Amino acid sequence: MRISELSHASGIPVASIKFYIREGMLPRGASTSATSADYGDEHLARLRLIQALSEVRALPLARVKEILDLVDHPADTAYATLGRAVNALPPYVEPTDAEHARDTIDALGLTWDPGFGAVAQLGAAIRAVQGAGLRWDAELAALYLEPIRTLAAGEIAPLADMAPADAVAHAVLGTAVYEPVILALRRLAHQQLLAERTSQPPA
Amino acid sequence: MRISELSHASGIPVASIKFYIREGMLPRGASTSATSADYGDEHLARLRLIQALSEVRALPLARVKEILDLVDHPADTAYATLGRAVNALPPYVEPTDAEHARDTIDALGLTWDPGFGAVAQLGAAIRAVQGAGLRWDAELAALYLEPIRTLAAGEIAPLADMAPADAVAHAVLGTAVYEPVILALRRLAHQQLLAERTSQPPA
Repeated sequence: MRISELSHASGIPVASIKFYIREGMLPRGASTSATSADYGDEHLARLRLIQALSEVRALPLARVKEILDLVDHPADTAYATLGRAVNALPPYVEPTDAEHARDTIDALGLTWDPGFGAVAQLGAAIRAVQGAGLRWDAELAALYLEPIRTLAAGEIAPLADMAPADAVAHAVLGTAVYEPVILALRRLAHQQLLAERTSQPPA
Repeated sequence: MRISELSHASGIPVASIKFYIREGMLPRGASTSATSADYGDEHLARLRLIQALSEVRALPLARVKEILDLVDHPADTAYATLGRAVNALPPYVEPTDAEHARDTIDALGLTWDPGFGAVAQLGAAIRAVQGAGLRWDAELAALYLEPIRTLAAGEIAPLADMAPADAVAHAVLGTAVYEPVILALRRLAHQQLLAERTSQPPA
């Protein structure tokens, strides 16, 4: 298809498509003449991915590029690639926040690896909970971890049946795009539980 | 304590403290003379809350004010207050995105209430998942909802033993500040599960 058709199919303006090509985020189409090129479904899929990360997920352009680069050129292992993907995703915190997570990581039996971005992200999150005057201790941490581990295990399971490159792309994108799903479902579950509670007669 | 001591104790510059007072986010201290006032622990707690929401949670100032206003002047019910809190929290999406969540909400047996912000938030999240070319269907939605409902039920449980005003404040703040904890723990769980998988001999 021509660039105008690609724009129509994706809902993304031609100027933005040309920008993504210049930035190396979208491959050039196959040249059909000096001034036009042919684009395929792979270009459409790539544009939808860029849109999912930049618009729906609201990531800054530099971070979208990092994620795309990880999908195109994964690190040697899914573990290393996931580590880099996590560092490209918000919240963007100070590495020194890792120390705030140390007691929790130890209590939960998780791996203390302050080079993995999620450790400092957890530390900053704990600092916010405590700053808001809310509870955080080993017992509560375990109450959180148990269902989250169930959820994470369900997410990781399909990777075993994928080709390594697909598994890495899935892990990177899945980390980014299922997060808002999880938060929205939690809010909906709270709403439903509160509605059920208030409609019950007092005990 | 004096404003300089409040600044020292909170780590927040005096100019910022004065700004929060002018914006009505922090109550004035009790006047001790024409130019000085006395601040207490309640001022320190309030500053820590503002910091947790604006710095650690990275909410824009207008949204921090909305959350503080909900804590100070909750709606009639925890349900209504939670609804307003959810609307004050990211992701900030288009109300029309609610339609993208309709099939999922129906399949999960959740309440279809497009006025509740989390419905459109879920819709936008589903759009991002599909845009990234990843799976979303009723079976996967149920796989997500089950552990999330367990988690949400654990979070709601303590509200029953709280005074109504405390329960509302807790629900509003808890929605905001435990989200980054959940996302960080999920990333850590992924890391651990991947590490366990790769250290196992191939089946």
